[in-house]
Amino acid sequence: MDARNAHRDPERELSDAVLASFDATPDPRLRELLAGLVTHLHAFVRETRLTEDEWATAIRFLTDAGHLTDGKRQEFVLLSDVLGLSMQTVAVNHPTAVHVTESTVLGPFFVAGAPAIDHGGDIAFGASGEPCWVEGTVRDEHGELLGGAHLEVWEADDDGFYDVQYDGDRVAARGRLDAEADGSYRFWALTPTPYPIPDDGPVGQLLAATGRSPMRAPHLHFMVSAPGCRTLTTHIFVGSEQPIADSVFGIRESLVRTFERYGPETPTPDGRTIDGTWTRVRFDIVLARSDQ
Amino acid sequence: MDARNAHRDPERELSDAVLASFDATPDPRLRELLAGLVTHLHAFVRETRLTEDEWATAIRFLTDAGHLTDGKRQEFVLLSDVLGLSMQTVAVNHPTAVHVTESTVLGPFFVAGAPAIDHGGDIAFGASGEPCWVEGTVRDEHGELLGGAHLEVWEADDDGFYDVQYDGDRVAARGRLDAEADGSYRFWALTPTPYPIPDDGPVGQLLAATGRSPMRAPHLHFMVSAPGCRTLTTHIFVGSEQPIADSVFGIRESLVRTFERYGPETPTPDGRTIDGTWTRVRFDIVLARSDQ
Repeated sequence: MDARNAHRDPERELSDAVLASFDATPDPRLRELLAGLVTHLHAFVRETRLTEDEWATAIRFLTDAGHLTDGKRQEFVLLSDVLGLSMQTVAVNHPTAVHVTESTVLGPFFVAGAPAIDHGGDIAFGASGEPCWVEGTVRDEHGELLGGAHLEVWEADDDGFYDVQYDGDRVAARGRLDAEADGSYRFWALTPTPYPIPDDGPVGQLLAATGRSPMRAPHLHFMVSAPGCRTLTTHIFVGSEQPIADSVFGIRESLVRTFERYGPETPTPDGRTIDGTWTRVRFDIVLARSDQ
Repeated sequence: MDARNAHRDPERELSDAVLASFDATPDPRLRELLAGLVTHLHAFVRETRLTEDEWATAIRFLTDAGHLTDGKRQEFVLLSDVLGLSMQTVAVNHPTAVHVTESTVLGPFFVAGAPAIDHGGDIAFGASGEPCWVEGTVRDEHGELLGGAHLEVWEADDDGFYDVQYDGDRVAARGRLDAEADGSYRFWALTPTPYPIPDDGPVGQLLAATGRSPMRAPHLHFMVSAPGCRTLTTHIFVGSEQPIADSVFGIRESLVRTFERYGPETPTPDGRTIDGTWTRVRFDIVLARSDQ
């Protein structure tokens, strides 16, 4: 350090100047968010002594992610997911509470306007996989049954793909239904199977370079809403004797369920006979109240 | 906090799990960078209590930036610039030293393969603006004149646009030349004028929402290289009696120059008469050695 800057810290001064540039932001929350972002990103650059080549690599990564992203592929959500930022956001907004079903990541494959099904109907719509009978109830945190609660459910097929990952306008392995007046629900889906997140882009390259698996633990997505309650976004995971791992850090112990498997000799809960194995799972859902 | 997690901090545990997921990264530098990034981004989410709507806004911002970015528009570089991250990276990699010309941001408008000009030639190639005679020398930090040092220079026209911001394949207001054997150089350019960074995209929306100006201080870009020396990326800024401000935090006092203005009655340094005003600036460049 020479005489000209013996008593100065030009890197800190720069960070302070950037923070000050946002002082006049009219919206106090936006100001707070930008102050936090600038503070942490500048600290990241200073602490890691980021090189200019590394900076350029980051710009290319974001550019590639942007060019891969379209209405059906969301590389920035995948990036947020594999860095655990999606799940951290869930954790911040939905702290664990004893009497309320836990939340987990939304993921990039939710589509609004899924087809409505009847009670006991099938969301597969031709998607391949082992049939799975899903049943349960929807209550609020005080134990009140929530007749008419709305459920959106979606999942990958047993080739590991959601409908939107196929060419064309396929709609399959997703649906919506309302709980019956007594708060109960039931439908046919597919037994969830493990699948890799889309890994042919920059996020996949990141996982490969870091020795991480792209595999998600087998799961079925739920989004459940009812008047006066906070909307719940969650999964149920397929329990296993082996520990299950998840590339997006979405597992919460309370969401792991046993999927009981049956053969064709066992009639299904809706009195049918299936030519092959099928599974059955129960998921009783408890929503937090938002109006109290 | 209830009995189930009375002694736990699930948010911290999640951050730790994400950090641990990168433990097997073969490249130690990549591991270090990801650890820093995860640590700071997770802290940002926890400390600001980022909402899910805010997270979704961030995903849309990155998506929009990606879709606007192409071979001629780099919204991620602009984002890095207005958050001061580009300049912080410059600061980390090029600490101020008494005898070496200071660096500043590259910006998004450098293009390799600019046209070569002769000594005393003109980089305007038809771009509009007031003529500006630029002259100086290139030395190393020990004062040795660097004959043959390579200079790339580029700037906006007086409408505030770089050539690549126009439709078509215009090449103007950029050029390259080599210093003469005695280390001197001279060329005609345009007197730099203030201009806004491209602000019709998400970065412009961010500046508008925060009450910040998109204007850059008037400047002329240089990239100067010579064998045995670190390549210098910098600007010279046009000094003014008023304080000058810059939307990308690029100003360093040592880079501000007086551009002397002359009328048509004064012959130019290369003995011509110009029908209008012109300016003259001197920039003596000192490169850091890389081979010692």
